[in-house]
Amino acid sequence: MSRQPVLAIDLGGTEIKIGIVDGAHILAERKIPALAGRGLRAALDRVDEATRECLGELSMDSGSLCGCGVAFAGLVDCGENRALGSNGKYEDAATVDMSRWAKSRWGLELVLDNDARMATVGEWQFGAGAGVSDLVVVTLGTGIGTGVVIDGKVLVGRHFRAGNLGGHIPLSVDSNVMCSCGNRACAESLASTWALRRDLAAESIEGDLSTAEPSEIGFQEIFAAIENGDDEAAAIAVRVIRVWSTLIVALIHAYDPDLVILTGNVTRSGDAILPGIRDYVNQYAWTPGYEVRIEQGEYPAIAALLGAGYVVTRDLNDGKHVQ
Amino acid sequence: MSRQPVLAIDLGGTEIKIGIVDGAHILAERKIPALAGRGLRAALDRVDEATRECLGELSMDSGSLCGCGVAFAGLVDCGENRALGSNGKYEDAATVDMSRWAKSRWGLELVLDNDARMATVGEWQFGAGAGVSDLVVVTLGTGIGTGVVIDGKVLVGRHFRAGNLGGHIPLSVDSNVMCSCGNRACAESLASTWALRRDLAAESIEGDLSTAEPSEIGFQEIFAAIENGDDEAAAIAVRVIRVWSTLIVALIHAYDPDLVILTGNVTRSGDAILPGIRDYVNQYAWTPGYEVRIEQGEYPAIAALLGAGYVVTRDLNDGKHVQ
Repeated sequence: MSRQPVLAIDLGGTEIKIGIVDGAHILAERKIPALAGRGLRAALDRVDEATRECLGELSMDSGSLCGCGVAFAGLVDCGENRALGSNGKYEDAATVDMSRWAKSRWGLELVLDNDARMATVGEWQFGAGAGVSDLVVVTLGTGIGTGVVIDGKVLVGRHFRAGNLGGHIPLSVDSNVMCSCGNRACAESLASTWALRRDLAAESIEGDLSTAEPSEIGFQEIFAAIENGDDEAAAIAVRVIRVWSTLIVALIHAYDPDLVILTGNVTRSGDAILPGIRDYVNQYAWTPGYEVRIEQGEYPAIAALLGAGYVVTRDLNDGKHVQ
Repeated sequence: MSRQPVLAIDLGGTEIKIGIVDGAHILAERKIPALAGRGLRAALDRVDEATRECLGELSMDSGSLCGCGVAFAGLVDCGENRALGSNGKYEDAATVDMSRWAKSRWGLELVLDNDARMATVGEWQFGAGAGVSDLVVVTLGTGIGTGVVIDGKVLVGRHFRAGNLGGHIPLSVDSNVMCSCGNRACAESLASTWALRRDLAAESIEGDLSTAEPSEIGFQEIFAAIENGDDEAAAIAVRVIRVWSTLIVALIHAYDPDLVILTGNVTRSGDAILPGIRDYVNQYAWTPGYEVRIEQGEYPAIAALLGAGYVVTRDLNDGKHVQ
């Protein structure tokens, strides 16, 4: 099949990325603030404008594109191409007919999926997971997103949630810490950026971290503070690495992969976290006779765009979504 | 296709069940002690004898059978039809060529799989899961076994472990309780019969339970003691129901089913445990817009035999395993 470029859009909670994607290559790209609190409908005009800019930069019109792939920061009904929920971001998303928008604005068919699942596809097809048939991708960020490939197929599930809710596996049966999803003590509620900020805001902090606003601290700041000898930051790191390691053991036991890929902003501090996680998983995961590799993602910033591009090329060239 | 009966064998840790199975019907059945500590090879002569008895009872010879399906109380390499490990039961199992045994003794092709996965297939095809495309079966017993069906297919995984290790999802990140698998604080190490006996042996017990040997107490005794007003038993029940409920939330988030089936001996006390589990899961599982049913298995004693029969009929009639 001859491959055409794809309009790929990553609707994140804080930033929207728009790219014209060809395989693993981003031919043109724009980033715009999400302003997700104002809703998805309000963002689409700005997405249009950024798309026009990308096409203009390439002297291309939308007729040269294969289709439009959208990665959404929330759960998605892949059958209906509709957002299901997003925990406070793009509150109106479930009422927006994205397929109609792509068709009327750009004359393009659309494929919509959850952003962690799209990132999983991107790493699987073009990144650290290339050539692997069974893998789990864990995106450590504001929340924790996951995606799963088993026997060369992306796990989807009855309500499109299978493999996607790894961040919501409860890991502390005796804890009453509430997660944003309504469950108790999900991995995400114990060790994600939002959980970190909640904890920092609730505690009196000493050392390096005391001078920063909790809302501006992420794990990169934690690992930087450790390098300056900050004990409080070191204790936080020990805790979150144990939670992430335990989650990865859970995911290995649940999905039986050969490879776990960690991605997201946190993994820019990969040297500080990977050895500890590998040691823990090596010791505690039950994998007699084989070893599960744990690697960093190759495309922490654009895996979802690449995945969206791949899914469109695969599905629309197959005629699956073409009307 | 015309269906022939199947020789189905459930190699449990304490008991071996042998049945001639036709769909959901057991035409003849024998139960023999497993004596699993003596190994699998030592058990096979007794399995032969019981099989002969079953065939004799039906005036049937093995040539009338479609094949032999074996459910094994441990992990299985389904590709090679070989046991992988079983945590202390049938230590020699990995060295026993079961296919060769079935062929030379009975002239039958063999399909081997883990017992929890076979029980899952049995409930899915003939029991509480009939007609459901996405379900999880949890067998609560000496350990905790699980099996998963997604989109009408049994989840297997790269090393044949996907969906099978639900009992080994870690549920207590701060606990150092060791599981038999080498991991910390797996569901099974917090709330299974072996974990209960470990805890009872370690603590001084009062009330009804104090008169029994810990090694003879199971959850049925716990729930019976509660009916007699035993506070200690009631506290144990609260704890294990919380663990089981949390595990079920984890499995719902991991596999996205419409139905979770609880089976195993414990569920003979179903009236004592199901309402509490349903309440918890209803409150804490993240299932916006739909509800996951939680039901008891229809065949707690023979689901694995029925599943083994089904798998043989499906695979061997397809010619998949026929040489």
